[in-house]
Amino acid sequence: MTTSTALLLADLAGVAVFAASGASAAVAKRLDLFGVVFVGFVAALGGGIVRDLVIDEVPPLAFADWRYATTAAVTAGAIFWLHPQFARLRTTVLVLDAAGLGLFTVAGTLKALDAQVPPVGACLIGMITAIGGGLCRDLLTGEIPVVLRREIYAVAALAGSIVVVLLDGLGYAGPIPLVAAVLLVFGVRLVALRRRWSAPVAALRPPPRTGGIPGPPD
Amino acid sequence: MTTSTALLLADLAGVAVFAASGASAAVAKRLDLFGVVFVGFVAALGGGIVRDLVIDEVPPLAFADWRYATTAAVTAGAIFWLHPQFARLRTTVLVLDAAGLGLFTVAGTLKALDAQVPPVGACLIGMITAIGGGLCRDLLTGEIPVVLRREIYAVAALAGSIVVVLLDGLGYAGPIPLVAAVLLVFGVRLVALRRRWSAPVAALRPPPRTGGIPGPPD
Amino acid sequence: MTTSTALLLADLAGVAVFAASGASAAVAKRLDLFGVVFVGFVAALGGGIVRDLVIDEVPPLAFADWRYATTAAVTAGAIFWLHPQFARLRTTVLVLDAAGLGLFTVAGTLKALDAQVPPVGACLIGMITAIGGGLCRDLLTGEIPVVLRREIYAVAALAGSIVVVLLDGLGYAGPIPLVAAVLLVFGVRLVALRRRWSAPVAALRPPPRTGGIPGPPD
Repeated sequence: MTTSTALLLADLAGVAVFAASGASAAVAKRLDLFGVVFVGFVAALGGGIVRDLVIDEVPPLAFADWRYATTAAVTAGAIFWLHPQFARLRTTVLVLDAAGLGLFTVAGTLKALDAQVPPVGACLIGMITAIGGGLCRDLLTGEIPVVLRREIYAVAALAGSIVVVLLDGLGYAGPIPLVAAVLLVFGVRLVALRRRWSAPVAALRPPPRTGGIPGPPD
Repeated sequence: MTTSTALLLADLAGVAVFAASGASAAVAKRLDLFGVVFVGFVAALGGGIVRDLVIDEVPPLAFADWRYATTAAVTAGAIFWLHPQFARLRTTVLVLDAAGLGLFTVAGTLKALDAQVPPVGACLIGMITAIGGGLCRDLLTGEIPVVLRREIYAVAALAGSIVVVLLDGLGYAGPIPLVAAVLLVFGVRLVALRRRWSAPVAALRPPPRTGGIPGPPD
Repeated sequence: MTTSTALLLADLAGVAVFAASGASAAVAKRLDLFGVVFVGFVAALGGGIVRDLVIDEVPPLAFADWRYATTAAVTAGAIFWLHPQFARLRTTVLVLDAAGLGLFTVAGTLKALDAQVPPVGACLIGMITAIGGGLCRDLLTGEIPVVLRREIYAVAALAGSIVVVLLDGLGYAGPIPLVAAVLLVFGVRLVALRRRWSAPVAALRPPPRTGGIPGPPD
């Protein structure tokens, strides 16, 4: 197996895991078979589509290479029937999802750097590649995105993308450092899950009422 | 009337029908006049905007040709005042909507093929052209998109886009086969409505609780 | 201070105000620190990202110039801790928001005209630049966008973008007329707030039931 075949297989494995998470959320919301497949497609490929639009790689990979859409659709369709079994694999799924998070982050950041996006933008694009699909999945199923509410998920991705940008800036972006960046995201995410780490939530006090221009603030 | 004039009129008629459906949903949600016009615009042109971004036809037709935005805005504005009459035309609206679905599917698929998108991607883009506006309409009005929940709607579009891609691959994409593809989508949608066909929904059993890493699945 | 420095500072001030409004909404929804910063980023830069995608300026400014993302993130992060103080500045915030609305409208319309978008499209893009961020903020926090529901907000932006397109068409798009267009949006918005102007909402009567094809209208 060549390196590029290995990379493609890893990428498609990530697509399958994310498609399964999307399909599973869609089943829980009582969407129909088409809805389950569509949400699986968006959860798996939405982040990459946004990345490709932003770096002007058109048509996005999700439309240009049939293996991506097919992997997502077949996986999501399988979850439609196998969702009880899938729900039982909860721990495995969380571990695979963390691996997908690492992979998508590093691949997305590298693509952005290749497209001459400056460092800060490349970090953001790498992170959006990894979290964008889950975000779209939650919007489509009528939820406030979970990635914005709790847990260390996006922050793990952001840490990984910063490391990739630093490695690239220092000229160290070879295969081994990049694999280390994937493992960093993977590890941070797993430790955060195991220890139930969460990002802080602001303390809410009722805002004091004052005078001035009435009406809602836009 | 030349062919291209006929095509433009058909396209604008589709825009008007979709704008009316968006405006009608916005009225039901108590949006204000601006909201009604905006949701009408998005319902009519959102699918095409996504299509044009994905195939890099910029600015998208909705912004490049004033007749599209104007048709959508005028129609949506009219629904703001005429919505009780519009609601009474329920059957007519469903039939026109099915025609718009067929038209947008075939036009979108052809545009994607013209832009050198490979077959699987072109099918997806054709379908997204047709269902994207309704999807955005539902997101803007706080609903889980109806196209993901029930009925044969997106599947009719997908069938049509597959036929267009096959015709194109076989070199048969002339006017008559393409009109047949529009009629196919139209017919499938109408029969599905008449017979109350729906896509299946997964049987839900409460997932068995197991141990492992705690916390929500991303 | 040169003109271009002044313009950049004004633009970043607008970004900061919009980021603060997004962060504030996210705090109210109990999002975590990452969610607050992300919603602030999207509220500040989402409209500009859509604009840049539509006119094919890639990567969008939000990713190409680190000062935009940094301003948004730092402001949103500060609101996470300072939101009670921020809530007390209600009137100031509304005034600054109105100024940001004017600035984003005029800058967005000019960019669209520079990118050869025809007049009607340029008006729409200018308005979307100004209202897009707030719209995304509301979708991410599970709300029907407030800009679609009440108040004169988008209409003020649309008026400003029409004025810019007219000035440009007449060859009068110099600094002084453009500042006047910003002030127009600013003024309309403030007067609308002070006088509690709202766009009209359609009178709702229960639609009469008739026969015909059953099922929901798409």
